[in-house]
Amino acid sequence: MSRTLDTRPARDGFRMPAEFEPHDGCWLLWPERTDNWRLGAKPAQAAFVQVAAAIAASEPVTVGVSQRQYANARSALPPAVRVVELSSNDCWMRDVGPTFVVDARGRRRGVDWRFNAWGGLEGGLYWPWDLDDAVAQKVCEIEGADRYRAPCVLEGGAIHADGQGTLLTTEECLLNPNRNPGLTREEIERLLADHLGIETVIWLGRGVYRDETDGHVDNLACFAAPGVVCLTWTDDRSDPQYEISRDAHERLASARDARGRRFEIHKLVQPGPLYMTDEEAAGVDHVDGTEPRRGGNRLAGSYVNFYVANRHVVMPLLDRKRDARAAAVLKRAFPKREVVGVPAREILLGGGNIHCITQQVPRPRELRSGRAAPRRRR
Amino acid sequence: MSRTLDTRPARDGFRMPAEFEPHDGCWLLWPERTDNWRLGAKPAQAAFVQVAAAIAASEPVTVGVSQRQYANARSALPPAVRVVELSSNDCWMRDVGPTFVVDARGRRRGVDWRFNAWGGLEGGLYWPWDLDDAVAQKVCEIEGADRYRAPCVLEGGAIHADGQGTLLTTEECLLNPNRNPGLTREEIERLLADHLGIETVIWLGRGVYRDETDGHVDNLACFAAPGVVCLTWTDDRSDPQYEISRDAHERLASARDARGRRFEIHKLVQPGPLYMTDEEAAGVDHVDGTEPRRGGNRLAGSYVNFYVANRHVVMPLLDRKRDARAAAVLKRAFPKREVVGVPAREILLGGGNIHCITQQVPRPRELRSGRAAPRRRR
Repeated sequence: MSRTLDTRPARDGFRMPAEFEPHDGCWLLWPERTDNWRLGAKPAQAAFVQVAAAIAASEPVTVGVSQRQYANARSALPPAVRVVELSSNDCWMRDVGPTFVVDARGRRRGVDWRFNAWGGLEGGLYWPWDLDDAVAQKVCEIEGADRYRAPCVLEGGAIHADGQGTLLTTEECLLNPNRNPGLTREEIERLLADHLGIETVIWLGRGVYRDETDGHVDNLACFAAPGVVCLTWTDDRSDPQYEISRDAHERLASARDARGRRFEIHKLVQPGPLYMTDEEAAGVDHVDGTEPRRGGNRLAGSYVNFYVANRHVVMPLLDRKRDARAAAVLKRAFPKREVVGVPAREILLGGGNIHCITQQVPRPRELRSGRAAPRRRR
Repeated sequence: MSRTLDTRPARDGFRMPAEFEPHDGCWLLWPERTDNWRLGAKPAQAAFVQVAAAIAASEPVTVGVSQRQYANARSALPPAVRVVELSSNDCWMRDVGPTFVVDARGRRRGVDWRFNAWGGLEGGLYWPWDLDDAVAQKVCEIEGADRYRAPCVLEGGAIHADGQGTLLTTEECLLNPNRNPGLTREEIERLLADHLGIETVIWLGRGVYRDETDGHVDNLACFAAPGVVCLTWTDDRSDPQYEISRDAHERLASARDARGRRFEIHKLVQPGPLYMTDEEAAGVDHVDGTEPRRGGNRLAGSYVNFYVANRHVVMPLLDRKRDARAAAVLKRAFPKREVVGVPAREILLGGGNIHCITQQVPRPRELRSGRAAPRRRR
């Protein structure tokens, strides 16, 4: 059961926890569409299986899959992963799933944003997106979480929260007229306050170069802890990413969070630059109305696009010359977690990475009594 | 998560509880196919909503629905009912869902029988039935119940258990060559023993007249308590049902259950006889390969086809002249429960009734400590 509420989360006492707070589980969707994933999506499916298995070492994982691919997904995924039927237009659970919020009474609810495939008919990546827009409700039903249907377009990958009132986002995405053309910056900040309990929004400028989501922050920068940020970086001044990362660094260095803290910034040097090969592009179906894949396309690769599980950081492996260095930075940023790498080029070819395909289910904690809420039964 | 086990439930210490033992919930499927349900399935959907709501007063209800009908089902069903995507070929959760078994350690598992649409290509009711055959596994996944894949064709409506080692069934169904042609009566009894912990099988003969399931027992007779049976009945010796019910009564009267008890028998006089009208038949799509619906068809109506929820008996209302009398008999058979009637002709038109469209999730109880297992979180 999942009631749809017409109140606002913050007024009801709910806030968005940080990803590094404890989870009860994690949701993914199964990649299927052959006009985005090469070779019938088989290489991507193999990569998703590795991601699901890596996260399942920390917390219960559920994968949603269409009826057509159910038996195949069930067969490919480890038995410990729960597989449920859940239709979608593609598989970006971060962007189409609910943003869970929790309160001090140990309750959990879902915020169900409107979804328009990263820009609707003005630059969106495919049409239709009706199944994607219904995913968050279906997840809330299975989780038994009441649901807020938010009155604005937003994707989960466009925001990162520190759980203490601060949110990271980008102007390129949240102020893009293809999302909420009628809303000003101040009105968007008010929506984030009302729905997620945010007091301070840190506005970065553009997202990663050639990121087709219109610059999702989750490919550019994220919180490792309150007051601690990871940022994708390059020292190559001739690379278009340089100016983007430099600007983000400047904004972060001069900002203070909702608690008045300055940020400690961990730079993660970008992989590559990486480009789609002709062979990779040739394995993708050509369909009118879907973003075409072409050999030579620059890929928006970033080590920031990792998932923080309860005991592990699951990071993408993208470049043999840079992976180890990125892992070392993450180990310093997350000293209590084990850093696990998963080969992720096949996910990147589809337009995102490990953070984009996951959505955590935070564990609500009852604060008044000091006791943690009971764990979800598996 | 749901592991698929290759052991046998009885050897693992599991047994099938009776329907009148406590439940953690109940599953249904949503009626959709327009070649079985008249007028685009809308009248049947309205009836299913009433059944779901009546059961939800006793225990958590989950309804599985296709992607196409999800929004409509979610809108039509009460908010307290959980709605999940779950594809099927039709909507008979009793027959396609898992038969749950429990053990004395408070665990619950699912038995996933093979399903062939009540007879496969030799008298089955439709083709294909691939989605139906996958339903039990999908329910087990969402319930987090490990699963036994049984090596035989069986539908849940073909059996009733008293939870103390006795099972009711019919020869017409379980010995029908269109189910398990290679198996003898003794081999079937062994399978029921191995999978459900059954010690004594009470074989009735034929099921209700013109029951297209090949005589499912759940339309003919069921347990109200250990040693107490309800039996559909008619006093009209000219009615074809008379000889069927008389034979069943004779067998029951001379039988003893696994504990050596004789049966107390409650007769439920059948409704009608009831017939499909030309108007009702005209609302059903004609499709090659599906059992046709014709005006004048005798309907296999029976008041035995009720569902025993935790605090209610949810019974079909089928005949204004007989409903109250049936309710009074049920009240005597289930003295601790409230008897609730739901108008059910629209369900009967599709070929079954309230018991056929439901499947209980028994509540496992840890017997060694005497404490009940914790209730499922909603």
